[in-house]
Amino acid sequence: MTQTIDFWFSIGSTYTYLSVSRLPAVTSRTGIGFVPRPFSVRAIMKEMDNIPFANKPAKAAYMWRDIARRATGYGFTPRLPAPYPLKAFDLANRVAIVAAGEGWCDAYLRATYRRWMEDGEEAGSEPNLSASIAAAGAEPSEAIARAQSEEIETTYLAATDEARRLGIFGSPTFVVDGELFWGDDRLDDAITWRKHGRLD
Amino acid sequence: MTQTIDFWFSIGSTYTYLSVSRLPAVTSRTGIGFVPRPFSVRAIMKEMDNIPFANKPAKAAYMWRDIARRATGYGFTPRLPAPYPLKAFDLANRVAIVAAGEGWCDAYLRATYRRWMEDGEEAGSEPNLSASIAAAGAEPSEAIARAQSEEIETTYLAATDEARRLGIFGSPTFVVDGELFWGDDRLDDAITWRKHGRLD
Repeated sequence: MTQTIDFWFSIGSTYTYLSVSRLPAVTSRTGIGFVPRPFSVRAIMKEMDNIPFANKPAKAAYMWRDIARRATGYGFTPRLPAPYPLKAFDLANRVAIVAAGEGWCDAYLRATYRRWMEDGEEAGSEPNLSASIAAAGAEPSEAIARAQSEEIETTYLAATDEARRLGIFGSPTFVVDGELFWGDDRLDDAITWRKHGRLD
Repeated sequence: MTQTIDFWFSIGSTYTYLSVSRLPAVTSRTGIGFVPRPFSVRAIMKEMDNIPFANKPAKAAYMWRDIARRATGYGFTPRLPAPYPLKAFDLANRVAIVAAGEGWCDAYLRATYRRWMEDGEEAGSEPNLSASIAAAGAEPSEAIARAQSEEIETTYLAATDEARRLGIFGSPTFVVDGELFWGDDRLDDAITWRKHGRLD
């Protein structure tokens, strides 16, 4: 049986770019699959009054520099800073909910993050949105209409409730047997935990 | 010539425990020395309205679990959660300023963090404070009196000003040729940057 890790994310998180871009190579190397779990990190952060970068210029400048260095280290070619925050955060994630249900979420995620972080096109907005849906093999107008349906809104809210119950407060968060690993920089810890149930 | 990295820290930061505890092994392995640079991260965080854990129970719970897992992975034996936040934050760091000037900062740091995170005694307060100064080979009452002098207050404020100018906003921060690496989890990046001037 393939081992898996739940990959909780919100499109709109900047550091999630690093995970989205390297998960295919990580799966090839480790044999571990990542189950896409889109949710609204913004809703949870608002409840917590957790404001990581707005009005914190030193921290925001560091964040972009840190992502640029690490992305380059992984062999990616970001063009930073990218537009931030996203205007259409929820639509980007509701499309991810549709995509996760239909099996094209990984390709959509990679396409929309590449366009956002490497081409400067905001995720969730045009032309990124339709192009990324099409790149994943789906029909943009149909997927967008479905993303705006009440059914998908309900699924999105339920996923966010589940994240809250698990104690998730940031994106990306990797969950292994109830253990949370927050941040792209905890991906190796999550893999070790999946394999050995401990880090020591 | 020995290569060095500036190690900016405030006693009171929880994650700094991981760095303080593993720097001796890191120096043995890499030959890189770490120059202790105590400053007041609290002053800078207040200015930024950066409140990482207070009133954020999910994030605080995660922080302790993350530190426990990683510390165990490094072979340390923390007893967490430890008392937090510190009541005598500034005194703990003013003693570090004295210690850095007199050459016993590394031993003081290791002793005070071990007592705080492994024995449950608050850093900066008794009995931790005097025991940690003594463990570093200094005379507690003399060191504490000097830490409360105007000269040391001036040095502490100047160090905090320098940290602010460098763009530092958290502890630990490793600085290599003007590049900031924030967090114990960026220590490997800082070492790579020291050796190669890049991560890729």
